[in-house]
Amino acid sequence: MSATDLPPHDHAGRRDRARQRLGDMSASHLLVTDPVNVRYLTGFTGSNGQLLLGAEASVDRLITDPRYDERAAASCPDLDRILDRDPLGATLALAPGAALLVEASHLSWRQGMKLTESARDAGVTVKDADGIVESLRLTKDTAELARLAVACRITQDTLAWLFSEVVAVGRTEAELALRLERAFIDAGADGVAFPSIVASGPNAAIPHHEPTARQLAHGDLLTIDCGAEVDGYHADHTRTVAIGHLDTELAEVHETVRRAQEVGRAAVVPEASGGEVDAAARRVIEEAGYADAFVHGTGHGVGLQIHESPSVGQGSAATLRPGMALTVEPGIYLPGRGGVRIEDTLVVTAEAPAQELTDTPRELLVL
Amino acid sequence: MSATDLPPHDHAGRRDRARQRLGDMSASHLLVTDPVNVRYLTGFTGSNGQLLLGAEASVDRLITDPRYDERAAASCPDLDRILDRDPLGATLALAPGAALLVEASHLSWRQGMKLTESARDAGVTVKDADGIVESLRLTKDTAELARLAVACRITQDTLAWLFSEVVAVGRTEAELALRLERAFIDAGADGVAFPSIVASGPNAAIPHHEPTARQLAHGDLLTIDCGAEVDGYHADHTRTVAIGHLDTELAEVHETVRRAQEVGRAAVVPEASGGEVDAAARRVIEEAGYADAFVHGTGHGVGLQIHESPSVGQGSAATLRPGMALTVEPGIYLPGRGGVRIEDTLVVTAEAPAQELTDTPRELLVL
Repeated sequence: MSATDLPPHDHAGRRDRARQRLGDMSASHLLVTDPVNVRYLTGFTGSNGQLLLGAEASVDRLITDPRYDERAAASCPDLDRILDRDPLGATLALAPGAALLVEASHLSWRQGMKLTESARDAGVTVKDADGIVESLRLTKDTAELARLAVACRITQDTLAWLFSEVVAVGRTEAELALRLERAFIDAGADGVAFPSIVASGPNAAIPHHEPTARQLAHGDLLTIDCGAEVDGYHADHTRTVAIGHLDTELAEVHETVRRAQEVGRAAVVPEASGGEVDAAARRVIEEAGYADAFVHGTGHGVGLQIHESPSVGQGSAATLRPGMALTVEPGIYLPGRGGVRIEDTLVVTAEAPAQELTDTPRELLVL
Repeated sequence: MSATDLPPHDHAGRRDRARQRLGDMSASHLLVTDPVNVRYLTGFTGSNGQLLLGAEASVDRLITDPRYDERAAASCPDLDRILDRDPLGATLALAPGAALLVEASHLSWRQGMKLTESARDAGVTVKDADGIVESLRLTKDTAELARLAVACRITQDTLAWLFSEVVAVGRTEAELALRLERAFIDAGADGVAFPSIVASGPNAAIPHHEPTARQLAHGDLLTIDCGAEVDGYHADHTRTVAIGHLDTELAEVHETVRRAQEVGRAAVVPEASGGEVDAAARRVIEEAGYADAFVHGTGHGVGLQIHESPSVGQGSAATLRPGMALTVEPGIYLPGRGGVRIEDTLVVTAEAPAQELTDTPRELLVL
């Protein structure tokens, strides 16, 4: 499936599923202020848009400002619009006497304090419903999985091209990042999922390294962590390769991470917790004596955000269900020497094994 | 000055100026949680970093997590680090009994409610100090102005190249945006200041149009609103050109916007208010009979954010001072037919006229 041949989103259906939660919480309205959640429920992608969701679909309104009126009309023709630069004020005016749910992590403290005050005057009760829309987003629908698959396919194919055609002694990290990101766009991506990490030699010991003018040298490890974005959906994919030659300890470190990632992927099954996936991968690294060198969680959910639920870190109680998308990306980092990370994007399936949206060979590639 | 030859930032000096405000507000600490403000005061650009600023510089701490330890050490070597994924908890532990200022627009409502509770137990009083750092950022220092100038120079030169070498009947909006943004990077930009707006024909009536596959046609108006980003500083520049031929009314609309922008630029003088700049430009458009077709403010401050203080919209009381950077960008939008916007980035100077960081010719260019 190409980026231009994707099934449409069912925004109205998603809003109806969110609406069911209103009843569960004895609420009459939900004000969605997280731009990602607004996009999920409406398709609107402007920088200023809020969704007021009512108990009946006829109450639903997209609140935006005049700059976005035409764009909103085009991207969500099935939603009435309110043009108002004060969405909290507009909400109170639209829903006097409401039992209003809000996303308290996606209002500022200042907005929250002001809303509390004005709501009193409007006879509106306000309740924090953080996570309502995120809970719907946890399990990806067909339209979402199709976009994740295309984003991952573009990412994997482009990374393979970069390794075979571009990576060479003397190239700089910044040059590789630039060539990679351009190639994503040429391949049909809408953008990059996050600024690419291209980390070589000692820089590979920095998990979130920003590409520099450092030139690849014989004996380097090279970690590339990258992703294409397609219609808002993010791929996340990492491989570490060796340039020319690799000393024995670093080769063993690579093999340890490879095994940890394999075990981690195998632990991605329905009803497992995110913490169990983390523990499975982490145990391999601990047993090899590198516990302190694995300084981050094993993975994270991925979708409209590059990091989203479920958590796949230490102690995470999040339960994996079919349709969830997540990464498995253990790593070992040795300050001053280098590091290794291997990462794939997976979808939990009813029957193990999980579907691998990226599956670039994981054996150590020496270029 | 090129992007590689820029004066260093004086982060410690900026922190000392912020520190003076603590005394003014009888506070012992300020917790900076807005990532842009953290960057301004420290140089740190990771996705998770907070600055705890004390009454003495020795108290200052950058709070981040292990992923960013090496990067923080490299980008702010003069600041001690605390690695803790709960910055609010870490703050209370570092500053028991403090009179703590926070940025209530840059904490979520949820965080604010939690902080109120935990602060009580730690004997910490919490007070909203929104805008403290923003007030320092209003007036740009030498290092900042140098970066804005380079970003604007790259933007202007690249736009000139695009108009002369690339724009032609048959090219798509998306293709022009892509070529433009790549050329920014080739010219030394660190990125794009915002997704470029390339709006042709009827699409030019949409102020924040996203580039589409629409092909340029004879008789179109074409608006390109774009900017390069250099070390975090944003350029913002717009021109509308005509493709091949233009009907008389649209040519008159262009001339009206050109005059409005000229009058707006001339109003950018010390002690003027942002509202006065807006009113000056708006009056020209109103007198031409297009009041309802100018659907946004005349401009905005620009710097580490593409939109920041001072406001240059209707009724803005913000007083302009030397060293402030802002845009002047009136526009007229005629749904179904097209639109015109002319925008430059300026710096307020002690003596008028303001310094124009972009000054692409403003007469109607017919390509």
